[in-house]
Amino acid sequence: MSPAPEGSASRSTALHTDRYELTMLDAALRDGTAGRRCVFELFGRRLPGGRRFGVVAGTGRLLDLIRDFRFGDDELRFLRDERMVDASTLAFLEEYRFTGSIAGYREGELYFPGSPILTIEGTFAEAVVLETLGLSVLNHDSAIATAAARMSIAAGDRPLAEMGSRRAGEHSAVAAARAAYIAGFGATSNLEAGRTWGIPTMGTAAHAWTLLHDTEEEAFRAQIDALGVGTTLLVDTYDTARGVETAIRVAGTELGGVRIDSGDLPIVAAQVRAQLDELGATGTRITVTSDLDEFAIAALAASPVDSYGVGTSLVTGSGSPTAGMVYKLVARQDATGGWVAVEKASVDKSSKGGRKAAFRTLDEGTATSELIAVSDGFEELETAVTHPDARALQVPLVAEGEPDAAYLGREGVAAARQHHARVLEELPVRALALSRSDPAIPTVYIEAV
Amino acid sequence: MSPAPEGSASRSTALHTDRYELTMLDAALRDGTAGRRCVFELFGRRLPGGRRFGVVAGTGRLLDLIRDFRFGDDELRFLRDERMVDASTLAFLEEYRFTGSIAGYREGELYFPGSPILTIEGTFAEAVVLETLGLSVLNHDSAIATAAARMSIAAGDRPLAEMGSRRAGEHSAVAAARAAYIAGFGATSNLEAGRTWGIPTMGTAAHAWTLLHDTEEEAFRAQIDALGVGTTLLVDTYDTARGVETAIRVAGTELGGVRIDSGDLPIVAAQVRAQLDELGATGTRITVTSDLDEFAIAALAASPVDSYGVGTSLVTGSGSPTAGMVYKLVARQDATGGWVAVEKASVDKSSKGGRKAAFRTLDEGTATSELIAVSDGFEELETAVTHPDARALQVPLVAEGEPDAAYLGREGVAAARQHHARVLEELPVRALALSRSDPAIPTVYIEAV
Repeated sequence: MSPAPEGSASRSTALHTDRYELTMLDAALRDGTAGRRCVFELFGRRLPGGRRFGVVAGTGRLLDLIRDFRFGDDELRFLRDERMVDASTLAFLEEYRFTGSIAGYREGELYFPGSPILTIEGTFAEAVVLETLGLSVLNHDSAIATAAARMSIAAGDRPLAEMGSRRAGEHSAVAAARAAYIAGFGATSNLEAGRTWGIPTMGTAAHAWTLLHDTEEEAFRAQIDALGVGTTLLVDTYDTARGVETAIRVAGTELGGVRIDSGDLPIVAAQVRAQLDELGATGTRITVTSDLDEFAIAALAASPVDSYGVGTSLVTGSGSPTAGMVYKLVARQDATGGWVAVEKASVDKSSKGGRKAAFRTLDEGTATSELIAVSDGFEELETAVTHPDARALQVPLVAEGEPDAAYLGREGVAAARQHHARVLEELPVRALALSRSDPAIPTVYIEAV
Repeated sequence: MSPAPEGSASRSTALHTDRYELTMLDAALRDGTAGRRCVFELFGRRLPGGRRFGVVAGTGRLLDLIRDFRFGDDELRFLRDERMVDASTLAFLEEYRFTGSIAGYREGELYFPGSPILTIEGTFAEAVVLETLGLSVLNHDSAIATAAARMSIAAGDRPLAEMGSRRAGEHSAVAAARAAYIAGFGATSNLEAGRTWGIPTMGTAAHAWTLLHDTEEEAFRAQIDALGVGTTLLVDTYDTARGVETAIRVAGTELGGVRIDSGDLPIVAAQVRAQLDELGATGTRITVTSDLDEFAIAALAASPVDSYGVGTSLVTGSGSPTAGMVYKLVARQDATGGWVAVEKASVDKSSKGGRKAAFRTLDEGTATSELIAVSDGFEELETAVTHPDARALQVPLVAEGEPDAAYLGREGVAAARQHHARVLEELPVRALALSRSDPAIPTVYIEAV
């Protein structure tokens, strides 16, 4: 028998979790450490792919998913049948809901190595089990948003549409459309992203449309009948010059646009523009969509292209499909209730213990550093930074288990997109270059007194 | 207000679709071409990343998802509110279910450039709308399975566990665990993959477990109390040599295993093995888990490692996160009901028209070519291949809209894993090398008479 489809009604998000989170929980309930209050930190040790900045995305999705992180009958039955945890752990999970707090960077914010993107505080038991889900969401969505931001910079004022759903897992595709929109894309081809997140959708026709018809002319005529003369016709199924000629003959010079999906784009775009102008279709726009990434977009800056559609390279993070963030215990209570900063010393994978407060220092509005105040304790952090022009980067996201509604749903996406556009303005010019480099600003740690 | 979470009860899979599929449908219903019977083909033009073979995965998932591809009230309301399609298209979608047929490669089968992995036959209207979902599933899952197969080859007889959930979108993580299992991995850390697909799960403890305790010794002792002496202790939180010493002191020489997650693995593994043997723990296994890919695994072949855990590189397809497959119209009826082979001529993106039948030719059990018979018509294909030792690669997957249950659910996964292991035996030895190259066998087209 086929199981209920993953993601269907009866499924919570609670099993999107590595098994070891639950074996640790099991052992902690047994040895009495489960109730120790802990601070976990979600951060990236480095920026992937020689990027100059990272873009935080996924936060709003994660807050929604944490709300659904409950162990129902189905989840408990699976864990019991597989003998993964003992009866007292099952009883704990049955009652589980996250009651702690999460502070962190706003969605759309920039981040740098060591930025404390999320700070999760709660008991060990309630906070450790969120590791896998938190990293899955933030690592995927931030990788896409970071690539998208670079593409947006390369495109300048020309609109960008996301159309990579077919090159990503069917759910990741929706998340990718959302992340791209936050980082400056204007639309997506993905209908579920339109429905769930309110992102504008776009799309007209594929090559199959032309092939379905006996002639290209019939296909164009039928498309214009259905979608109007403002539509975009795909002109490269057989021969692009003939396609353009046919398009204008059928649609007239008021045709909205043509799309080119193959060939050497700078050359083809120039040829098509010249042909359109010669035919009098000076207002017909040119959209290009063939295997674009930020470098190809930049290379088209001087070409007569009006908009870009980006697929594969967007949804695969343009060479860096995961942000590589980690979720580490940085402080905890000891047996007496006192706080201890903790860190691991593993080669190349060390962590920095202690709770952090993060600020972006600015000089006349331009970012100069990621300033991170570190404390063994907790009270000092608020007053640790006396820099005259430093923007605090962390906001409360979840209080006593309840997410702040401002960061959820469509409103959260719209706010994240606005926030991203605003903070991007703070970057120094060198941060906008596409070549591999060090982070655009240094991460500076200070010890809180 | 926050929307219903994506993937919740009220959501079908029907909006995991690019908008242009529906605008084409809308136009086709208007101009009368919607009912033309069509053959779409899902195939890869090339193997990504200089791979020598590809592995088909996702088929069973896709068949399940096609069953749920229905337009309910929520989906129709969205399309109506956004004015994407007209009333007659909404009426068509309300009744939509796929009633055509799908034949294709079995899940777990190998594929090469041009292999007709899926052949979808139905009306244009019912078949075109499956493009995005079909490609999302096959492109993601096949990319992971292909990477996993190479890792399995590199690991030889040593067990491999998938533990990359945190570096992939939360749903793609489950699909990745499934694809890896089909391609030879023995277990996953992902609990949802265990529940949904019956894949063995594994996992013991993270660094947080050690950091939670006042000493490494206390952490190890508590873990052994909970999980028994057969557990695997993570020994590199502070200092690996001290960790190993503590582990054996606490657990005794019957300790099941130690895990190393950092450092220069060939060196560290040899040191740890020597230390364990010296302490008398000659049966204690060594698991390594630090940023492994197929090349790192191969480099550890001579090291005293007992098993591997692979994360990031597995779930990101080890440099090729998507298989790059496409979904193309290759044949259709014309206005008189006759069949026409169709193909596009776009630069570097041409397709080969006509329906295909695919065979793997063998010489004494070793694959020699991917033989693809092409026909404008349909009846000839069965008898087209007279090669004495050719294995037919396509099986019926969906008939009149009903998927064959043998390919669904847990049983489908188990069968795919077995099939993969069997067909891998047919590959010539040169196919098992990890370096970039051409496909291991050529794709040969013949015209059916």
